[in-house]
Amino acid sequence: MISVGIFGATGYTGLELAHLISGHSEARLVCATSTSHAGQSLARVIPGAPEIEMLTPEEAPLTDLDVAFLCLPHGLSASLAERLIAEGVRVVDLSADFRLRDSGLYQRWYGVAHPAPQLLEEAVYGLTEIARPELPEARLVANPGCYPTSVLLALYPLVGSGPRFDWVIIDAKSGVSGAGRSPSQATHFVEVADNLKPYNVGRVHRHLPEMEQALAGWHPDPPGLTFAPHLLPVPRGLLSTLYVPLGGGWSVSRLESTFARLYQDEPFIQLLPPGELATLRHVNHSNRCAIGWTLAERVLVITSAIDNLLKGASGQAVQNMNVMFGLDETAGLLNLH
Amino acid sequence: MISVGIFGATGYTGLELAHLISGHSEARLVCATSTSHAGQSLARVIPGAPEIEMLTPEEAPLTDLDVAFLCLPHGLSASLAERLIAEGVRVVDLSADFRLRDSGLYQRWYGVAHPAPQLLEEAVYGLTEIARPELPEARLVANPGCYPTSVLLALYPLVGSGPRFDWVIIDAKSGVSGAGRSPSQATHFVEVADNLKPYNVGRVHRHLPEMEQALAGWHPDPPGLTFAPHLLPVPRGLLSTLYVPLGGGWSVSRLESTFARLYQDEPFIQLLPPGELATLRHVNHSNRCAIGWTLAERVLVITSAIDNLLKGASGQAVQNMNVMFGLDETAGLLNLH
Amino acid sequence: MISVGIFGATGYTGLELAHLISGHSEARLVCATSTSHAGQSLARVIPGAPEIEMLTPEEAPLTDLDVAFLCLPHGLSASLAERLIAEGVRVVDLSADFRLRDSGLYQRWYGVAHPAPQLLEEAVYGLTEIARPELPEARLVANPGCYPTSVLLALYPLVGSGPRFDWVIIDAKSGVSGAGRSPSQATHFVEVADNLKPYNVGRVHRHLPEMEQALAGWHPDPPGLTFAPHLLPVPRGLLSTLYVPLGGGWSVSRLESTFARLYQDEPFIQLLPPGELATLRHVNHSNRCAIGWTLAERVLVITSAIDNLLKGASGQAVQNMNVMFGLDETAGLLNLH
Amino acid sequence: MISVGIFGATGYTGLELAHLISGHSEARLVCATSTSHAGQSLARVIPGAPEIEMLTPEEAPLTDLDVAFLCLPHGLSASLAERLIAEGVRVVDLSADFRLRDSGLYQRWYGVAHPAPQLLEEAVYGLTEIARPELPEARLVANPGCYPTSVLLALYPLVGSGPRFDWVIIDAKSGVSGAGRSPSQATHFVEVADNLKPYNVGRVHRHLPEMEQALAGWHPDPPGLTFAPHLLPVPRGLLSTLYVPLGGGWSVSRLESTFARLYQDEPFIQLLPPGELATLRHVNHSNRCAIGWTLAERVLVITSAIDNLLKGASGQAVQNMNVMFGLDETAGLLNLH
Repeated sequence: MISVGIFGATGYTGLELAHLISGHSEARLVCATSTSHAGQSLARVIPGAPEIEMLTPEEAPLTDLDVAFLCLPHGLSASLAERLIAEGVRVVDLSADFRLRDSGLYQRWYGVAHPAPQLLEEAVYGLTEIARPELPEARLVANPGCYPTSVLLALYPLVGSGPRFDWVIIDAKSGVSGAGRSPSQATHFVEVADNLKPYNVGRVHRHLPEMEQALAGWHPDPPGLTFAPHLLPVPRGLLSTLYVPLGGGWSVSRLESTFARLYQDEPFIQLLPPGELATLRHVNHSNRCAIGWTLAERVLVITSAIDNLLKGASGQAVQNMNVMFGLDETAGLLNLH
Repeated sequence: MISVGIFGATGYTGLELAHLISGHSEARLVCATSTSHAGQSLARVIPGAPEIEMLTPEEAPLTDLDVAFLCLPHGLSASLAERLIAEGVRVVDLSADFRLRDSGLYQRWYGVAHPAPQLLEEAVYGLTEIARPELPEARLVANPGCYPTSVLLALYPLVGSGPRFDWVIIDAKSGVSGAGRSPSQATHFVEVADNLKPYNVGRVHRHLPEMEQALAGWHPDPPGLTFAPHLLPVPRGLLSTLYVPLGGGWSVSRLESTFARLYQDEPFIQLLPPGELATLRHVNHSNRCAIGWTLAERVLVITSAIDNLLKGASGQAVQNMNVMFGLDETAGLLNLH
Repeated sequence: MISVGIFGATGYTGLELAHLISGHSEARLVCATSTSHAGQSLARVIPGAPEIEMLTPEEAPLTDLDVAFLCLPHGLSASLAERLIAEGVRVVDLSADFRLRDSGLYQRWYGVAHPAPQLLEEAVYGLTEIARPELPEARLVANPGCYPTSVLLALYPLVGSGPRFDWVIIDAKSGVSGAGRSPSQATHFVEVADNLKPYNVGRVHRHLPEMEQALAGWHPDPPGLTFAPHLLPVPRGLLSTLYVPLGGGWSVSRLESTFARLYQDEPFIQLLPPGELATLRHVNHSNRCAIGWTLAERVLVITSAIDNLLKGASGQAVQNMNVMFGLDETAGLLNLH
Repeated sequence: MISVGIFGATGYTGLELAHLISGHSEARLVCATSTSHAGQSLARVIPGAPEIEMLTPEEAPLTDLDVAFLCLPHGLSASLAERLIAEGVRVVDLSADFRLRDSGLYQRWYGVAHPAPQLLEEAVYGLTEIARPELPEARLVANPGCYPTSVLLALYPLVGSGPRFDWVIIDAKSGVSGAGRSPSQATHFVEVADNLKPYNVGRVHRHLPEMEQALAGWHPDPPGLTFAPHLLPVPRGLLSTLYVPLGGGWSVSRLESTFARLYQDEPFIQLLPPGELATLRHVNHSNRCAIGWTLAERVLVITSAIDNLLKGASGQAVQNMNVMFGLDETAGLLNLH
């Protein structure tokens, strides 16, 4: 039985982890923390949540934990991770603190010096399907961002294993839970409902360097990216539509075999049959990534859908935990509906 | 041409007034104020809004105005109203400050002493269909709340003009714009979407004394009220379902003639044909109140729908202005769709 | 291991059962039928559904089944139930065919003669919390309607066990999946979105006699009902707001103990703490019924929320199966989120 | 006063025209037809619609009309247009029948021979901002499709007037009213809500040849198009995100002046200030097209938003009528909110 702590339980990723760990047969929740709601039950703060009494971070019994999930703002996560690792607790960090391996890049995108740069080198970027071999030994896993998860799983088979292409246009659409649970004008119901809003278009969004870093690890001359996220009027779900102008050397059958070779046995990747495109309904309330594509003359259009709170955050975090601790990778992640 | 000022233009009622006055052939917008966004155009603050440069309240040229619409928090409204009236500007107040005629009642429900109690007596409660005779002389109009508008228009024909009944149950459902534009946990998209939430049920909501005061003006022994508002996952629209256990003396035909006598010529009341119940679609983006009813054995069920931002707020405010200034009551209020 | 068949798998209740049985550790899906999509996988018909190859009803291996869930239109269900029972298969019928015990009443409300009246007497009305003692021996379970489930669980503690009251007003609001998966003008997205629509108000809805029959079984002189359902712009979830004018003899503490005595140990009833009212978020994607109430002078207001597809249909069907076969009542029904 | 007929009043475009003509000071509605609801008032068929008694198409007094709006399925439109023109009635056709000038192309995309090929040559493609000079003499106007309106207005300033570029990727998202009012599985509320669905991606959608034809009229070697429409869970509104890999010769300032030169005085084109991207809120319930763009390294990202029922259909149809008859182009189209 793995002993689990959730730090920052009242955000959407913390809440989702509380659900997942409550239903996991080989993990048990030892503590859940909240600075603002310590002493209360999570179920009182969020209707429908499990009945879990929350502690302050200071009260958390660190030494009782096998693994800690950090659902804290960036900056805070890194500091706590340092302490936890010193106590021998393995860490899955859902913030952005350990995703970029280069502390200079971190400073450029996050505007502050990295709080724990000495840990960057050992952090494993936890896109589970790709990081699988490194996870059993990992002390620190940087759980990927939601957009990068959907985009990178779509591109991984193509970058590195076949003819090079020059660039990729990513038109991505995310549900509002991706923006977090703190209220703001941008997440007010009346502003979001009946609307669709592009934001941080071009080379602006913090998930861009995360994607570029992964591509650079896969190919010496990786494709360039144009990234245009949009805020969708739905609570959860994320669809990335990728446009890849393929050069010569690619064909429909080569594409089919390329995707199939890598993904046909993956438990959480649903390769759609030819002609079927991914929708939010394929994946919501599951830990799956659904991938469907069509070749429109010279442009390959790939659709890649995830539930941003599951495969895009807390589900993948549990998937990572399962591999880290030698459990069945799907434990606690099937039949969520 | 009526010269209009809007005080508090960046909330939903202010925005709606900006639209309405922009399209009104006999009124022109002289100024719109915003404490937080003065110096900017309303269109930059709220996409889709008219291009109106906003002033601070202090910059507003009060003496140029014929009428001021106050879209401010309660308390602030009363103080400004006092100043405006002293300057000879007529006031339509969309806050709650002048709805209750009794300053003690105000203090009980709003927790503070009334800032301008000497104005309470002259304030006209602007449910236009009923207040019509008083409006041409009014210096100060208290624009009714959204729930009271839908409820009182449904009950007015029955209370006072026919056999008495003992009480009324009001199950009301409102879109989120009724909660204002300031972000809060309760109006976060993810909390509201796919949800339905009763709130302030029983004798808790501040619109209750407003309704009771109106009923007491119509009947010496008015029916009691049970009031249960619910937050609907829609941006706008309000439906009240009223349950009236009728005593003897009422029949379907008497009900028909009672409603028809009062409302058949009203431009903004849509009496639905027998068997048709009111829905948000009957009224959204219009200044209408749609009323449909059915008699289920001894219980009369009345459905009364309005667009909470139009007939429930800014539309009725313009309707009141039209009557105050002797214009066609429907000016600027038809064909809004 | 219980062998399960689902008849009518491509509707919303069939789909939900397919999910639930796929995740149930003590039941396995032997067959799923569809007249229109036999030969296809359910996952191809409905994105996100489990991979289940569907058969025609004729191809279904009846004799291999321990239990059959019928998700068919009324009329068809009764005929198939007859055949299944003759083959020794126990039946949980999610249609309305066996909910009314009186074949005359059935004919009045459904407009046709009952196809299998001889089975009516033995059918158990499967409101699990109440029917629990009868289920282990039951061959045929009539799974309750969604509205009756929410209403009857709210009223059961009060009717029969305390001072009588005269009647109840039920203002109920249901998500659109309650209307089934067949397309119609009334379920078109554009007609439903941003709308709220009362329908079948008064004594019109077919769930009314079902509720009255249950009440009559609990009290010789049961309260009368006024029933007003509304169509909510949400995919799933159902909230009933009940107004009960209590006579003397009831107090807050008596109400508390009345609800607690019956429900405090129920795994699927969530009694909310004082002052908290039920919302869809308390229950969606769970098999729970959340009940919260407040006493507003003489009127008790009860809010009762369920996920119409789970506790209101397929979840309760599995709960019934669990009790019928001596399994843990919660098997396959926890941590669905 | 222009005498107007609407043929096919009970679809969404017909309904919208009924609203617009009802509020138009220089046009009056002479007749509205419906095959299935003749004899009824439009307000009874669609809550919130104007009170208009509908006729069968046969009953329509053709000779009393100045202009007819055809909101009929393709094929039917062409036949009726022929008759109307023969009677001297000018026609604005909202179907696809006269959008493609080549009858062979029509047959390829619509699968049937064109019913009135002799009219193709004179039909004016009514993208008002561009067709303006031809409209005063036009007998027959083909009102553009919703996707082409948003895309072509975004591309017109760039194609033909500046350095050539090779191709354009169009990621478009439309509200559900674009799919029409007839119910289908694809427009069922439960299938659409909380979902996002790409469809007809690549070179499949019938609006593609319409866009290609327009581009070919503007440039001898027009850019190629990749077109990926998505179904959004909103009732109305359409956003196209265009990705244009610019070659040399373009700069931010050249882009600014190119858009401004053509559009700064257009009443229905809202050029957004630098850095602001178009959203549905900019345009819904208006006849505007909002255009905002950003240059992300070599890729120009343009966002172009319209209300699919107004600028994308009925609003543009009235705008065309206004120009055809020498009225103020904005008559009846301002302040709709």
